[in-house]
Amino acid sequence: MEKEITFRKATKKDLDCIVAMLADDMLGSKRERYEHPLPNSYIKAFEDITSDPNNELIVACDDNEVVGVQQITFTPYITHQGGWRATIEGVRTSSSVRGKGVGTKLIKWAIQRAKERGCHLVQLTTDKERSDALRFYERLGFKATHEGLKMKL
Amino acid sequence: MEKEITFRKATKKDLDCIVAMLADDMLGSKRERYEHPLPNSYIKAFEDITSDPNNELIVACDDNEVVGVQQITFTPYITHQGGWRATIEGVRTSSSVRGKGVGTKLIKWAIQRAKERGCHLVQLTTDKERSDALRFYERLGFKATHEGLKMKL
Repeated sequence: MEKEITFRKATKKDLDCIVAMLADDMLGSKRERYEHPLPNSYIKAFEDITSDPNNELIVACDDNEVVGVQQITFTPYITHQGGWRATIEGVRTSSSVRGKGVGTKLIKWAIQRAKERGCHLVQLTTDKERSDALRFYERLGFKATHEGLKMKL
Repeated sequence: MEKEITFRKATKKDLDCIVAMLADDMLGSKRERYEHPLPNSYIKAFEDITSDPNNELIVACDDNEVVGVQQITFTPYITHQGGWRATIEGVRTSSSVRGKGVGTKLIKWAIQRAKERGCHLVQLTTDKERSDALRFYERLGFKATHEGLKMKL
C-alpha cells in the first residue's frame, strides 16, 4: 500500500532538511551552502517568510520524515480586475523519494491552497536547463505562455 | 529639453488612470473592465497592495499626469542562501508617451528600488505574444533563462 504523504507549514526544526534538499540539486549545488551550523541568512529568510501572512513554506512529510518542500507566495495585483495570484517557488523533493509522485502531490496541494486563498491564477518559472521540469508542469496543466526573465543585482 | 519623469507610490486618486492604462493594451483589453464607477475588485486590490509592506504600486508622472505604472513585489526566499527577490508586474505606459523611454525609466527605477531593498535578483515574466517586450527587457540586461508557466483556476 502506498504511504500517504502529508503537508504542513515548515517549522524551524525542518530548516536543516530543507536546505539539504535545496543543495542536493543540479542548480542548487552551485548556489546553496549546506553547512553546520546553517548560515544565518537561511534562518533570517525563514523568519521573514513565516512571519509574512502572504508567504507559506510548505513541507511534504512521509511519516515524520521531510521529503519535499515548496514556497507559495500570495500576491494581490491590480491586473485581471484586481486578482490575487499564487506563485510557487523552490520546489524540491528528497532524492530518497524521487519518482514516487511527491512532486506531483506538492504542486496539486499548492493549487488547492491557491483556490482556498481565492487566487485566480497559479504561476511559477522553471529554469530552461531543467528540461524534465517543463514537461512535468505541463502534464499538471500549466501553460508555458510566458518568458521568465531574471537579472542578478 | 526632455521633461523629467518622476516616480512615486500610487494613491487612490491614480487608480482610474491606472486601470485605463491596463485596459488600453493588446492583452489587457480582453481582461480588464474600465468602467465608471470602477469595479470594486480594483479598489479592493489597491487596498490590499498598498497595505502590504512587501508590495509597491508605482506610477510614473509627467508633470502631474500619470503616464506609467508598475507593481513591485518583494519576496523573501530560502533559495539562494535566503535571498530577497523583487518581481515586477503590470508594467504599462500611457499611449500618449509611447516611444519616449518611460518604460525604460520605470524598469530602471524598479531595479534601483530592488537594490535599496536588498534584493539579489529582480525578475519578471512577459507574455510570449509580446515579442517586442522580450527584446525590450533583454536590452535592459534581463536574461530569459526561465519558462514562465501559468494555470488559470
